[in-house]
Amino acid sequence: MGKVKKLKKKIKKLKKQLKQGHSHASVSPLAPRGGFPDLPVIEGVEFAAIEAGVRYSGRTDVMLARLCPGTAVAGVFTKSATRSAPVLDCQAKIGGDPSAGAAIVVNSGNANAFTGQSGVDAVAGITAAVADVLDLPQNRVFSASTGVIGEPLPFDRITVKLADLENGLSPDSIQDAAAAIMTTDTFAKGASAVVQTNSGDIRIAGIAKGSGMIAPDMATMLVYIFTDAKIAQPLLQDMLATLTNKTFNCITVDSDTSTSDSLLLAATGKSSADQITDMNGPFYDALHDVMRDLSHLVVKDGEGATKFVEVRITGAYNDTDAHRVGMAIANSPLVKTAIAGEDPNWGRVVMAVGKSGAMADRDRLSISFGDVLVAENGQVSPDYSEEDAAKHMKGDELLIAVDLGIGTGKATVWTCDLTHGYIEINADYRS
Amino acid sequence: MGKVKKLKKKIKKLKKQLKQGHSHASVSPLAPRGGFPDLPVIEGVEFAAIEAGVRYSGRTDVMLARLCPGTAVAGVFTKSATRSAPVLDCQAKIGGDPSAGAAIVVNSGNANAFTGQSGVDAVAGITAAVADVLDLPQNRVFSASTGVIGEPLPFDRITVKLADLENGLSPDSIQDAAAAIMTTDTFAKGASAVVQTNSGDIRIAGIAKGSGMIAPDMATMLVYIFTDAKIAQPLLQDMLATLTNKTFNCITVDSDTSTSDSLLLAATGKSSADQITDMNGPFYDALHDVMRDLSHLVVKDGEGATKFVEVRITGAYNDTDAHRVGMAIANSPLVKTAIAGEDPNWGRVVMAVGKSGAMADRDRLSISFGDVLVAENGQVSPDYSEEDAAKHMKGDELLIAVDLGIGTGKATVWTCDLTHGYIEINADYRS
Repeated sequence: MGKVKKLKKKIKKLKKQLKQGHSHASVSPLAPRGGFPDLPVIEGVEFAAIEAGVRYSGRTDVMLARLCPGTAVAGVFTKSATRSAPVLDCQAKIGGDPSAGAAIVVNSGNANAFTGQSGVDAVAGITAAVADVLDLPQNRVFSASTGVIGEPLPFDRITVKLADLENGLSPDSIQDAAAAIMTTDTFAKGASAVVQTNSGDIRIAGIAKGSGMIAPDMATMLVYIFTDAKIAQPLLQDMLATLTNKTFNCITVDSDTSTSDSLLLAATGKSSADQITDMNGPFYDALHDVMRDLSHLVVKDGEGATKFVEVRITGAYNDTDAHRVGMAIANSPLVKTAIAGEDPNWGRVVMAVGKSGAMADRDRLSISFGDVLVAENGQVSPDYSEEDAAKHMKGDELLIAVDLGIGTGKATVWTCDLTHGYIEINADYRS
Repeated sequence: MGKVKKLKKKIKKLKKQLKQGHSHASVSPLAPRGGFPDLPVIEGVEFAAIEAGVRYSGRTDVMLARLCPGTAVAGVFTKSATRSAPVLDCQAKIGGDPSAGAAIVVNSGNANAFTGQSGVDAVAGITAAVADVLDLPQNRVFSASTGVIGEPLPFDRITVKLADLENGLSPDSIQDAAAAIMTTDTFAKGASAVVQTNSGDIRIAGIAKGSGMIAPDMATMLVYIFTDAKIAQPLLQDMLATLTNKTFNCITVDSDTSTSDSLLLAATGKSSADQITDMNGPFYDALHDVMRDLSHLVVKDGEGATKFVEVRITGAYNDTDAHRVGMAIANSPLVKTAIAGEDPNWGRVVMAVGKSGAMADRDRLSISFGDVLVAENGQVSPDYSEEDAAKHMKGDELLIAVDLGIGTGKATVWTCDLTHGYIEINADYRS
């Protein structure tokens, strides 16, 4: 029996090794400790979610949101040249007459992308059916699909569920909606803000999905944000576009841009607070916070992620160059694997600066990990302590700061590490 | 004993899983079966290699090549904005007076990149010492360093070995030189060609190193090619630049561009064959073959690689767009992990086309894996057999062909898959 014991011990050890090397946790280690946050109810918005069996079974995979008459809807979308049928349909509908209200319908499991005419037909079928059930004009029904690319969407599985979905609509069900749109996500993502004004509060609540194929370009994965603010659609659209450039367009998990990225922002106008007429102000700031929080949650659920990394660039020739350098660092597989290995490998940061295409002068560059100044003036800092830097790398929220020493351009972007978990998920999952 | 047998079987299985998932083979599975090829001796070139203990121990890490008087030297280098001191020094020396001969000295283990003034001093120290030992002008000594970035190069470890290196110089030692410049490489890389002409044979022999940080931009990792052709330096330089764009600039392992990429081509003029005066002709074609072979060997030794992939783009608006699409596919982590998983995931190919920035029309796109037509006209092909495509993916040399259906632009690029081996190597190795 000594032999059996020994062999069992060996099996235990091997299983542990396998797990450490391979398995991604069922929930990201970077998920917020408190679970899904309490989001404020947004007057004028109701949610429902249901199991339609589009592809998954044993979980919800369709969400429906009903927006009251007068709701302004703003949107930004992927710039991909191969964007999906629902994205094209949604884009065309932004800016329409809000008087009748609106709806958002989203399924997970199938992206309805690269599906030719059948994809266009599916979008038309779904939006017509939702319009019928909710008594809305079809051009006020915004749809989205996320999941596998290239397979025809069995959209009748969705349309047969619409009556049940309508029955389930409730102002309290935003968490169910957040869960129904997940694909490889390991947790549902929500964020909110309340803006206090003299004439009353304004509430903002948003949900997001996204975990891989994350390098948004003027848009993002799937994000839905709701507010009761009174605001005209063109101003809402301006705010959304401006803030997207500072939030979702500054994150990357794997440099790959989805065919389906969509971000909708709906304002019901039900708050008693005064109409918003200026771009800047407390509402803009609060919206910025919500969008930044949601974008960070997407990175924190990056496929296989174990570290959340802020890359802060200063001293660039201009902001565009700063963003370019930040993304080159944030997308570099060598930087991201070094982070996974908790190695303060600033040489790879230098490499990424060099390849970025931005104006850079090797001998003016300085680099810090957290508070530790690693390199300055084109070489390792005389006071550099690798031990201190290595200590910073052991945390799960890291900062890489690079000053290019040339101008006043700056940018901050966010990413995660590249681990065995990413390989594991993507060598198997069909997306 | 039935239990022991069962447990032993389990251990065997777990060990196999661990090995498959984790361990990169000591030699790439894509390495040429026959080992290092027999390369022809190039008259006028001698090689030596030695253990200098720059960083590694128990292996050679410095190579020296002596080139006879009259040797024309052409070179292309990384475009990185943070390129290393030896790269800058080498670039400045290309095109100098060839009458006294020349030398190439290369160390592995330390890249002498981002090392400030000490890096410049190290290059000056090494090239002056080589010039002294070989009785050459210092401006005819080309140096290169590859390995860890940011650590001062202990160049006296190299200079003290120069007398021994000179004593060891031999026309037959090119394989020793190829081995001495390896870093994370798993095999030494060589390729050759012999051009028969009426006036005599012209021989070409080249060596390369490179395995990670591979996305050359107008240049490559470290490559040294030698020929006995009679050819003027300006024409040699033209050929090198043109062919680099068709070979080394068409490969990628991980989208990361080295600070040290250098490619030198030396022509001794010792062949009895007539002077080469035209860009095109058998010598150009043979040089193209050698450069393509070497660039493919670099990909086949890509960190963690288990599949070699040719990405062939046709029907693009122009060649630049075709190259852009090819590199977007070849660099996509999602495409590369799908290949590792032997999954004919053409949806991810569509995604990469979409994000590339090239002109594309989703509904004219067609995609093949090997001979299997997967998608056409913006949707899955009616005759598509996933079984056939999956069979192709099981091979170790794969073809992904994309026709954009727009114009006549075309390009071919080469890459490898993204596996646990890449993560493993780069979460640990300090480069």
